[in-house]
Amino acid sequence: MNHVDTTLYLVTNSDGFSEAEFLETIVQACEGSVTLVQLREKERFGREYYELAVKAKAVTDRFGVPLIIDDRVDIALAVDAAGVHLGQTDLPIAAARRIMGPGKIIGATAKTVPQALHAESEGADYLGVGAIYPTTTKVVTVLTPVATLSEIAQTVKIPVIAIGGLNAGNLDVLYGSGADGIAVVTAIMNSANPKQAAQELRRLTEMTL
Amino acid sequence: MNHVDTTLYLVTNSDGFSEAEFLETIVQACEGSVTLVQLREKERFGREYYELAVKAKAVTDRFGVPLIIDDRVDIALAVDAAGVHLGQTDLPIAAARRIMGPGKIIGATAKTVPQALHAESEGADYLGVGAIYPTTTKVVTVLTPVATLSEIAQTVKIPVIAIGGLNAGNLDVLYGSGADGIAVVTAIMNSANPKQAAQELRRLTEMTL
Repeated sequence: MNHVDTTLYLVTNSDGFSEAEFLETIVQACEGSVTLVQLREKERFGREYYELAVKAKAVTDRFGVPLIIDDRVDIALAVDAAGVHLGQTDLPIAAARRIMGPGKIIGATAKTVPQALHAESEGADYLGVGAIYPTTTKVVTVLTPVATLSEIAQTVKIPVIAIGGLNAGNLDVLYGSGADGIAVVTAIMNSANPKQAAQELRRLTEMTL
Repeated sequence: MNHVDTTLYLVTNSDGFSEAEFLETIVQACEGSVTLVQLREKERFGREYYELAVKAKAVTDRFGVPLIIDDRVDIALAVDAAGVHLGQTDLPIAAARRIMGPGKIIGATAKTVPQALHAESEGADYLGVGAIYPTTTKVVTVLTPVATLSEIAQTVKIPVIAIGGLNAGNLDVLYGSGADGIAVVTAIMNSANPKQAAQELRRLTEMTL
């Protein structure tokens, strides 16, 4: 299992940003002490995704923050990212582990205890669990209750990250849940001041978890 | 440069097939002596694409026919396919070569001489050039004339494969063009007798090229 600081995980979404604005938002999030950044681009072709990943990696490297690529193991390898995040419809974790080797971070999405146990057994290094609240960045049909997150956190040994609609005003729901960190998109990406938003979320997360 | 027999290249399209029918069509195409098979799935998520690739590879392995995966280098690596085919919007060839190593086949699409030279310089092992004719399996806005294909074939050292709307009734247009093979989707996939269609195309291609 690869160690990863999951305290405050920025998941990006470049929709509606110019490239310069998008990269600047990642800069500010890193200045605000996010501990992990995921590039998540669902609509881009491979080449565009790769080219944006090269630029995002240049930013996160400046801050020593690990960059995770959503879905595309090949792009993660091509830009020498820290790892990949795999949802239930992405490449199986075991297949990704075979081609990435033992040293790369593989994160997985889990909404239930069986999914969590399966992901851990296949070699995942952390789990994203949610959506805790409804979110505007993804179509979510079923929310994952905090009770399920707690059960997952008690069941697996790898870090569990709460995701889905979390912000400074509602993350207290995770108090005592056993979550090891939170992942956010909108609360940082769409903040008027991403650095300050990240700082505040980091402070609250450390207080709460 | 990796050697590959490009005489008759089946590019698959599973739309409208059950999985069993789809795999059986590949079996028949291999029985009919296609020399190369490409799995091209534009609509599937990574996991589905991977699972289909595992099954397609089991078929092509039985016949000793190399399997090429369209677009997804990670899936090509995960199923240990012979290689990958990259279009202009896919991962750059040089990036794919870095992560695949020297022994895997990398094919590229080229519609112009500059694209062809660039692909060759980046390490492509063959080029797909077209569309020669309008095709029903892809939205093609500009056709590539046979004259351009000839110019490409005279310019690069790697094999050049004609693609786009080719069938037994029209591939004579390639006579004297310098093409090293043809790639087809519909002419085999949608034939009432894929084995016979492949045999006929193989015979005609060897006579014509």
